Amino acid sequence: MAQFNTSTPSGFPEFTPAQERVRQHWIQVISDVFESNGFCPINTPLVEREENFLAKGGNAKEMYVLKRLLDDDGDASHSGNAVRFDHTVPLALYVARHLNDIKFPFRRYAIGPVMRGERAQKGRFRQFDQCDIDIIGSENLSLLNDALMPAIIIQIFEKLNIGDFVVRINNRKMLTGFAKTFNIDEKSYLDVLDQKEKVSLETFHKMFEALRPNSDYDEKTKEVNALTQQLSKEEYKLYTLEWRDFFKIARTRLEGKVHEEYLEGLDELEHVWKVLKEDFQVPQSRFQYDISIARGLDYYTGTVFETTLVGSENLGSICSGGRYDDLAEVFTGKKLPGVGISIGLTRLLSQLFDAGIVKTNRSSPTDILVLAQDPQYMSEALQLGASLRSSGLRVENYLEPKKIGKQFDYANKLGIPFCAVLGEYEIRDGTVQIKNMSTGEQQTVPREEVAQSLKGLLT
Amino acid sequence: MAQFNTSTPSGFPEFTPAQERVRQHWIQVISDVFESNGFCPINTPLVEREENFLAKGGNAKEMYVLKRLLDDDGDASHSGNAVRFDHTVPLALYVARHLNDIKFPFRRYAIGPVMRGERAQKGRFRQFDQCDIDIIGSENLSLLNDALMPAIIIQIFEKLNIGDFVVRINNRKMLTGFAKTFNIDEKSYLDVLDQKEKVSLETFHKMFEALRPNSDYDEKTKEVNALTQQLSKEEYKLYTLEWRDFFKIARTRLEGKVHEEYLEGLDELEHVWKVLKEDFQVPQSRFQYDISIARGLDYYTGTVFETTLVGSENLGSICSGGRYDDLAEVFTGKKLPGVGISIGLTRLLSQLFDAGIVKTNRSSPTDILVLAQDPQYMSEALQLGASLRSSGLRVENYLEPKKIGKQFDYANKLGIPFCAVLGEYEIRDGTVQIKNMSTGEQQTVPREEVAQSLKGLLT
Repeated sequence: MAQFNTSTPSGFPEFTPAQERVRQHWIQVISDVFESNGFCPINTPLVEREENFLAKGGNAKEMYVLKRLLDDDGDASHSGNAVRFDHTVPLALYVARHLNDIKFPFRRYAIGPVMRGERAQKGRFRQFDQCDIDIIGSENLSLLNDALMPAIIIQIFEKLNIGDFVVRINNRKMLTGFAKTFNIDEKSYLDVLDQKEKVSLETFHKMFEALRPNSDYDEKTKEVNALTQQLSKEEYKLYTLEWRDFFKIARTRLEGKVHEEYLEGLDELEHVWKVLKEDFQVPQSRFQYDISIARGLDYYTGTVFETTLVGSENLGSICSGGRYDDLAEVFTGKKLPGVGISIGLTRLLSQLFDAGIVKTNRSSPTDILVLAQDPQYMSEALQLGASLRSSGLRVENYLEPKKIGKQFDYANKLGIPFCAVLGEYEIRDGTVQIKNMSTGEQQTVPREEVAQSLKGLLT
Repeated sequence: MAQFNTSTPSGFPEFTPAQERVRQHWIQVISDVFESNGFCPINTPLVEREENFLAKGGNAKEMYVLKRLLDDDGDASHSGNAVRFDHTVPLALYVARHLNDIKFPFRRYAIGPVMRGERAQKGRFRQFDQCDIDIIGSENLSLLNDALMPAIIIQIFEKLNIGDFVVRINNRKMLTGFAKTFNIDEKSYLDVLDQKEKVSLETFHKMFEALRPNSDYDEKTKEVNALTQQLSKEEYKLYTLEWRDFFKIARTRLEGKVHEEYLEGLDELEHVWKVLKEDFQVPQSRFQYDISIARGLDYYTGTVFETTLVGSENLGSICSGGRYDDLAEVFTGKKLPGVGISIGLTRLLSQLFDAGIVKTNRSSPTDILVLAQDPQYMSEALQLGASLRSSGLRVENYLEPKKIGKQFDYANKLGIPFCAVLGEYEIRDGTVQIKNMSTGEQQTVPREEVAQSLKGLLT
């Protein structure tokens, strides 16, 4: 036999069946939440025209294109197509394609694979599933949509039951406003803010000063910077302050001292906060303010979100997103603001499996394996299997002419919880022997009561 | 604004949201049936190593490969990967990768996109979803697995409720046995059989003779050929003959006159028939014998299936498959026989939408749109929305500050069946106005009864 390397290509992962069953359960939960909030499903093709991706800021270095292995049929339409690297640019193209049919605001979700030709490394995949929602407005989109996003993140992760988590919220206008106030570079400012939880107040203070070496450290700057430090530290995560007071203090102390864009962002944040607290009645433990969150600097323009699994902060954000001004102006000539979130499903689940936070169950969906103790009882076993299946159970008949011990081995290996055995006595008496594969317990049940009895055992 | 062609690339289709909702419902039904028969999900990567596909008979002319747009990072692992064109070769690779962990017989299902670089034409897609199941045995696989396949096809299409359908069954050994009997080319013989329902008996007769121009048309040949004709025509579709008689006649008349492979196939077919009739108790209207079914000549070796939608035979087979001897010998050195079926979901649904056989419903999953008659009632509207959603309804709040008429327009355009309106009187009285959007009927309901009342209206 020739030697083939049958492993999956580097960066293209494959879950085990037991993991895949978890993945499917997650997709079900996530899409149920999306739909229960009125998002409709869109499934754009895996590829779009290359030039469209490039026009919307697609990173050429990470983009995969599709080619025919033999480019010999003279059909140019095989070329020039690139694989989607996210669900946002395909959404922009979808909206451009159907602009006149879409009733805005447009709520859509997309769940499926995207590809990025990154360097392969642990936890970095080249193909991975993303689960996205976006709400797109025509010209305008109310800030209430921004507040809906964390509410949906919370619905999802509470249902997925992976432990305590926090949605961290910021507003890009506050960042930009600060940077404009002191005429410092926003990117460098963010790098400093990123360190806020890792360094002492004093170091943080010095890092900020280093951003503006030639400026006086005057009273106004001192005051603003003192507040920035406070805002950046634990005590300002709104655990200790009543939220109305937080916004009052920030506004009173900073009004007239900072660029107005900061105050605009503060107002937006307060509005989102109010809706989460008072209208959606989200518990305060589920969300907090984090001045260091920025997400894509070129893309997001207002509210931004990240979500942290408490105690597993090293996993990074498990669900992120934000508000943007321009979904598809380059394609449509129209102003289409939006807000959205995305869950990097493959990466997240891989991490959660590795960390033992999400555990897999059995690899087979089968509830009951029906066994014939001898091939002569196969016909009755098949009838029993079919009747149990009609009653709503997930049933498999063992179909090979193997000894009963081998059949039990199969059930054990696949983690099938129950076997229903038909042998000489059961056939004679019109009964079935039910074996609980984890306890080894066996019981004999009249044929007409088997379905009911198994349903009871399975709950 | 620059001009972009934002249409989907040729051969890469995109459903509307309403169609996509049907597609998702179908995937749910299909995977539920697969799981209720004990098949576990496998989700192999979209790409595999090119040489592995080519080793398993992948058609190089239809194969798409993945390349980085800029091939500049010197990482060879970006190259040499091709996109899967079916789920069978990826299954062979999956089995090779996990040979020692798999407990045989191995039941797996796969639902997802595959790509083929065919010439683009109506109804021929370059990306399309396939829904596959296969059962793989180690060395041997009982014929009972062959009988399970039509049983599963029938479970699926009865649940999908698309009208009357028939699973047509054949056995490749019968075809091969006939061809060997007369030393005629199997492919040419099939071409003749393919015409059986389109031509007169006499023409069919002549076509058969033309296959063997230099042979005598002796008694033996006459007899076999007469039976072939009969077997090929309506009266032998087992509607009129009791099935045991059919097999008895075929065996008695042909024994000693045809190649033994024919009789082997006949025995297998009879066994499949018996299990379907007697054990699975499938009604006779759901399956029939069709001598002209062959599927892939190089691949299938025993039982083969096609499924026809009665009255829409022009759609071709809506679900096909069969028995094969060798899944992955080239990769594993082991004999791994299997049997499987496949539904070409994208193509089938497109055809059914076009033919009006499957109708789409509304594009939005939302059951109830909650409206504030004036922005001052938004807070109460958001609370109402959240509470209806907790009670299990799919609820959307209209979040933009628009006049009530515009809000109703939105509900109508999306096909949302009910609106829950909060205005001055409702706030004062603690009620909600519920509007049935298809009848225009309105009723005022106490706030605490809204969820129950809407659930009643939605059923």
